[in-house]
Amino acid sequence: MSGSSTYADWIAVDWGTSNLRAWAMRGSDAIAEATSDKGMGLLEKSEFESALITLIDPWLGTARTPVFACGMVGARQGWVEAPYTAVPSKPLANRFARPETTDSRIDVHVIPGLKQLENPDVMRGEETQIAGFLAANPNFDGVLCLPGTHTKWAHISAGEVISFRTFMTGELFGLIAKKSVLRHSIANGWNDAAFITAVTDTLSRPEAMAAKLFAIRADQLLNATDVGAAKARLSGLLIGAELAGAKPYWLGQNIVLIGDANLSALYATALETQAALSQIADATQSTLAGLNAARILTKEPTS
Amino acid sequence: MSGSSTYADWIAVDWGTSNLRAWAMRGSDAIAEATSDKGMGLLEKSEFESALITLIDPWLGTARTPVFACGMVGARQGWVEAPYTAVPSKPLANRFARPETTDSRIDVHVIPGLKQLENPDVMRGEETQIAGFLAANPNFDGVLCLPGTHTKWAHISAGEVISFRTFMTGELFGLIAKKSVLRHSIANGWNDAAFITAVTDTLSRPEAMAAKLFAIRADQLLNATDVGAAKARLSGLLIGAELAGAKPYWLGQNIVLIGDANLSALYATALETQAALSQIADATQSTLAGLNAARILTKEPTS
Repeated sequence: MSGSSTYADWIAVDWGTSNLRAWAMRGSDAIAEATSDKGMGLLEKSEFESALITLIDPWLGTARTPVFACGMVGARQGWVEAPYTAVPSKPLANRFARPETTDSRIDVHVIPGLKQLENPDVMRGEETQIAGFLAANPNFDGVLCLPGTHTKWAHISAGEVISFRTFMTGELFGLIAKKSVLRHSIANGWNDAAFITAVTDTLSRPEAMAAKLFAIRADQLLNATDVGAAKARLSGLLIGAELAGAKPYWLGQNIVLIGDANLSALYATALETQAALSQIADATQSTLAGLNAARILTKEPTS
Repeated sequence: MSGSSTYADWIAVDWGTSNLRAWAMRGSDAIAEATSDKGMGLLEKSEFESALITLIDPWLGTARTPVFACGMVGARQGWVEAPYTAVPSKPLANRFARPETTDSRIDVHVIPGLKQLENPDVMRGEETQIAGFLAANPNFDGVLCLPGTHTKWAHISAGEVISFRTFMTGELFGLIAKKSVLRHSIANGWNDAAFITAVTDTLSRPEAMAAKLFAIRADQLLNATDVGAAKARLSGLLIGAELAGAKPYWLGQNIVLIGDANLSALYATALETQAALSQIADATQSTLAGLNAARILTKEPTS
């Protein structure tokens, strides 16, 4: 076995608050992958380079290897600040932040996030997934939804992000399920009917959410409802409320979901209750395609 | 100084999940008060009696002293389960749970909470405050709002609780302010204008709440808004959404707020934005008056 078989042409990095993922790339293909828990949230500025090198060292040859990284690594508290680009804008532009490195084997490019000034909003990482999706679907006109801790809805037209909106749905789900009084009523398990009923409950009456949340607890105390149904109901209430708020985004639109497969399937089911059809795109493939699009940008003549 | 001066005729106890408060009473007057952190959430069944005795021992004379206790002490995981009374019902009835005690100096009565079967809901503790308020205002017809971790809205008519609804607003505020990504954007300080704007924002568009929450963070990143205004905005968004959901309770009604003075004042301000006037009643006085009403009930002939 020759060690040279895993040398990378370039390296793709998705560096979030709590995780670091890297791929050894040849052209647009990943030939190796490595992950660590050295998320941006754990690191001082001086620690980013060694956290990365530890992970990718086996892939580095003698030539200087380009590295393209997206996510919170470009935040003010990250390795190097990659200032946000204001929308409307293409998701990527050839203006990457370039941290200095002591190891001369790597040439690091950090992708800027997007910001929206009116209706203040920000994203870091999702712009790369959007760019990846658009690389494969250059004529897409419609709405991308990126479900997660902070779900993003983005209006896409003529290759640009026109506007976007973030909902804290995933983070609220985690806090309520694990830290609130509802933690006593919620456990693993699932019930599709409870999810769908809950979605339509808050879609039609989003203002009742804080009361319907407590009713999960009361229902369990009084009627010993099953804990799996309670989990599905909590998820449905929160996603239903989000769909009520995001209606200007998805109503009558082409919708593509990019995110965790299970969570994207829940969003698709919730949208179906409103006769809104959506397609699901793979999150990791979108990230890699976006990082590859960033790499290709650096090879084009700057205008 | 004679130790006999603090002997109590009876003892009032407010025993919640995280706190225990007791008062030495002569008639309807408190002559001494003691508190401890031995909340119901910390105690095994066998530990309640000693937690109480430790606190009230100085007030016990030779005669057997009645003790009236409300709150989570009557939950299934509490000292003794005091099964809920179903509404519509008077807030108190002469059917108290009676834990056995090894110390013969006390005679303990635990007040049952209220439950609502349709639109499942429960309360423990607030029924006593409602009873206390009604003891002083027997002809009150209207709505009581008891702001707190789990804010309660109760329709009162002819001395009975007709229906009630719980909103998890206080608990959501605590979780979001302290545990979510917004914790970076929120600190002490206050801004009335930010609070009022936020109340009217979610009152008119409650479905946008999860997006408006994240916008607090984005606004701070992009515009360095002050952290006190962010706290006021978070509070306003959550209370505004609650008022949107509770509108059937307060619209066109007599409203009395019973709760922490600062929090009640916020609710009053929020209601004022909708031209709904409210009065504020003292929470501790309501609790003591309710426990006294419970004591008086035991002296009446049972029907």
